[in-house]
Amino acid sequence: MSEVLTKAKRVKSAEKTLRLATTDEKNRAILEIGRQIEKEQPMILKANQEDVRKARQNGISEAMIDRLRLSEVRMSDMVKACSKVATLADPVGSVMKSWVKGALNITQIRVPIGAIGMIYESRPNVTLDATILALKSGNPVLLRGGSDALASNMAIARAIKTGLSKTGIPDFAVEIIEDTNRENVSQLVKMNAYLSLIIPRGGAGLIRYVIENSSIPVLETGVGNCHIFVDYNADREKSIEIIDNAKTQRPGTCNSVETVLVHEKIASQLLPPLNERLGAKGVEIRGCINTSKIIDCKVAQESDWETEYLDFILAIKVVKDVQQAIDHIEQYSTRHSEAILTNDLTNARLFQASVDSAAVYVNASTRFTDGEQFGFGGEIGISTQKLHARGPVGLEELTTYKYTLIGDYTIRG
Amino acid sequence: MSEVLTKAKRVKSAEKTLRLATTDEKNRAILEIGRQIEKEQPMILKANQEDVRKARQNGISEAMIDRLRLSEVRMSDMVKACSKVATLADPVGSVMKSWVKGALNITQIRVPIGAIGMIYESRPNVTLDATILALKSGNPVLLRGGSDALASNMAIARAIKTGLSKTGIPDFAVEIIEDTNRENVSQLVKMNAYLSLIIPRGGAGLIRYVIENSSIPVLETGVGNCHIFVDYNADREKSIEIIDNAKTQRPGTCNSVETVLVHEKIASQLLPPLNERLGAKGVEIRGCINTSKIIDCKVAQESDWETEYLDFILAIKVVKDVQQAIDHIEQYSTRHSEAILTNDLTNARLFQASVDSAAVYVNASTRFTDGEQFGFGGEIGISTQKLHARGPVGLEELTTYKYTLIGDYTIRG
Repeated sequence: MSEVLTKAKRVKSAEKTLRLATTDEKNRAILEIGRQIEKEQPMILKANQEDVRKARQNGISEAMIDRLRLSEVRMSDMVKACSKVATLADPVGSVMKSWVKGALNITQIRVPIGAIGMIYESRPNVTLDATILALKSGNPVLLRGGSDALASNMAIARAIKTGLSKTGIPDFAVEIIEDTNRENVSQLVKMNAYLSLIIPRGGAGLIRYVIENSSIPVLETGVGNCHIFVDYNADREKSIEIIDNAKTQRPGTCNSVETVLVHEKIASQLLPPLNERLGAKGVEIRGCINTSKIIDCKVAQESDWETEYLDFILAIKVVKDVQQAIDHIEQYSTRHSEAILTNDLTNARLFQASVDSAAVYVNASTRFTDGEQFGFGGEIGISTQKLHARGPVGLEELTTYKYTLIGDYTIRG
Repeated sequence: MSEVLTKAKRVKSAEKTLRLATTDEKNRAILEIGRQIEKEQPMILKANQEDVRKARQNGISEAMIDRLRLSEVRMSDMVKACSKVATLADPVGSVMKSWVKGALNITQIRVPIGAIGMIYESRPNVTLDATILALKSGNPVLLRGGSDALASNMAIARAIKTGLSKTGIPDFAVEIIEDTNRENVSQLVKMNAYLSLIIPRGGAGLIRYVIENSSIPVLETGVGNCHIFVDYNADREKSIEIIDNAKTQRPGTCNSVETVLVHEKIASQLLPPLNERLGAKGVEIRGCINTSKIIDCKVAQESDWETEYLDFILAIKVVKDVQQAIDHIEQYSTRHSEAILTNDLTNARLFQASVDSAAVYVNASTRFTDGEQFGFGGEIGISTQKLHARGPVGLEELTTYKYTLIGDYTIRG
């Protein structure tokens, strides 16, 4: 039996125990994992140094190495994450709706999804984060990390399993795939008999591969080609503040802005100071023809409207009105997060009703699309699909529901 | 451009109008469709007679022909369905949650999913039912019916489009694929750029094909290998009543019972009268060894525990206790509907907590798993998957949500 099949069966077999586990039992397990991570920190850091050394040998970029590297601070954050997830409300068992129909009492109640397959790339802290969020929501998890982080991931997974073995939650509720051959991703996404959900986290290539090949339902996360539209009567200074925040605070995140649309009536007042502010921070601007008549910038190509730069680059387009902004977003957006900056209530309402994205803002930065910022206490990613969950995927989004019905020996007439 | 691509683009382009359509506009469109169906009844019935004639020539079974055939009664039901769906509450725009976080007001609001691909088999009334449920929930729909019902489906679709053309909803919100070549199903399930959801309705083969090949999220409907467990202290007479109802009321439906599990303490009192009652209705019993020692019946094979008979056949197994019943269900159930008949509250609670199916009953027939019986007013199928929707898929389940956020030029700190 292949490693993937063996471990998929193991996590599946943990579903029953987790389904019935109490909140206390799950919290104890998560806290025990935290303690074990703390205890095994020297081993985990040593394994991580080995991964970093190999990555350097393989000529991996410094940006990637930064994502791969664990430090004492990052490890302390991992331990804190355990304490925090233990304090979050348990979504399992909460009643979503309850009603009476004829002689039947019908209750819709939150339950775990079941075994989840998690496919991710270089950040080894995902091994822990995914595990504790999955366990808290009652789901076993089969982890498949990237080859660059293999030693780190295995060391973290060992600590997780040792932690679990001291609790009532079986240690096979969390399994990690050791062989990071590419073949096993294609095997994993066909394990319908054992896994109820696949969550890919990583680059666009990985996500596309999983969507195209998985026969298991997928939670699509990630790509954010986010827009901000500055309406004719927006506050100029505050708009510049928001665009700066949305572009430069952390440009590598999916909720950063990539294209700013500017109402033609405000363009000549807004663009020069915006250009100055962003230029000072090293942001390259790629503007439409009309933008380039107002400020000195590169001229945007068609491909710029489609690109998630994840970098200090911003596309700018002058538009006629809110409707043209909405149409541009309809055409190019990845349906993650978009904002309108305006003091016109009619336009604000039209924009929020028309734009079909997970998060649609009025007078705020797109950077808020995040489980922590929404108050979910944590997230496993940002969903850009329509089914099941949209936007930040926290504990509630890692559950499903079932109906429980009680009758009095009731038959259908 | 292929027919599938052309029509997928057309329905996608109707998303914007439907997203902003008011409840009144959608209701008027649905009622207009009903009027047009009524008006074109002679043409639709004529087209249907042609389908039935061809099906006979092709040696299609009488059961299938019965599913294919439209009558004046069935057509009048279709018109009534339009009036009914028009009266149902519109899920779009309802607020699921709303809270304040820092300077942001965050609202989770129900919105349409977007264009849906519907792939179905011989019943032509699905053409209408799927259309009106999709439109009411704000979703355009691309229909791909079976070749047997082609003339009927085209006639119904023509009436739908004529009806729509008299309203504010564009007639390209509903498109039907005319070429029923098998190739176009494989093309349809890859139209990620235009369709947000695929719903297959039909036999197990069609559903499996769609799950294995679609890169678009799928709502899996259908297969129900449902169980009833009769506990040691269940009321004997009432239990027989429920089993009879769940098996014989309409054995071809997915919520009918296929296996009855009987506590060993009640087996010798329950099985003889149950056998007599079901025997009189022509039900064939396939029992485990212990069952066959109490009543005269065929001996069940391993495959019987896995089979959705959809027929006058019932598998029966004697079990030691509620836990053994739960374990049997865990192994063989398709996670549709299961029931426990008991007067033991501890066992009732354990069964409802442990059994991981869409609907878990205490003292009621599994036949209630149905949108109408749940009070949803209609359904497009019964979901047996865990993601997005579970159990009856009504109007609410045909929506998703987005977050709208309002700030005061708020930036992330």
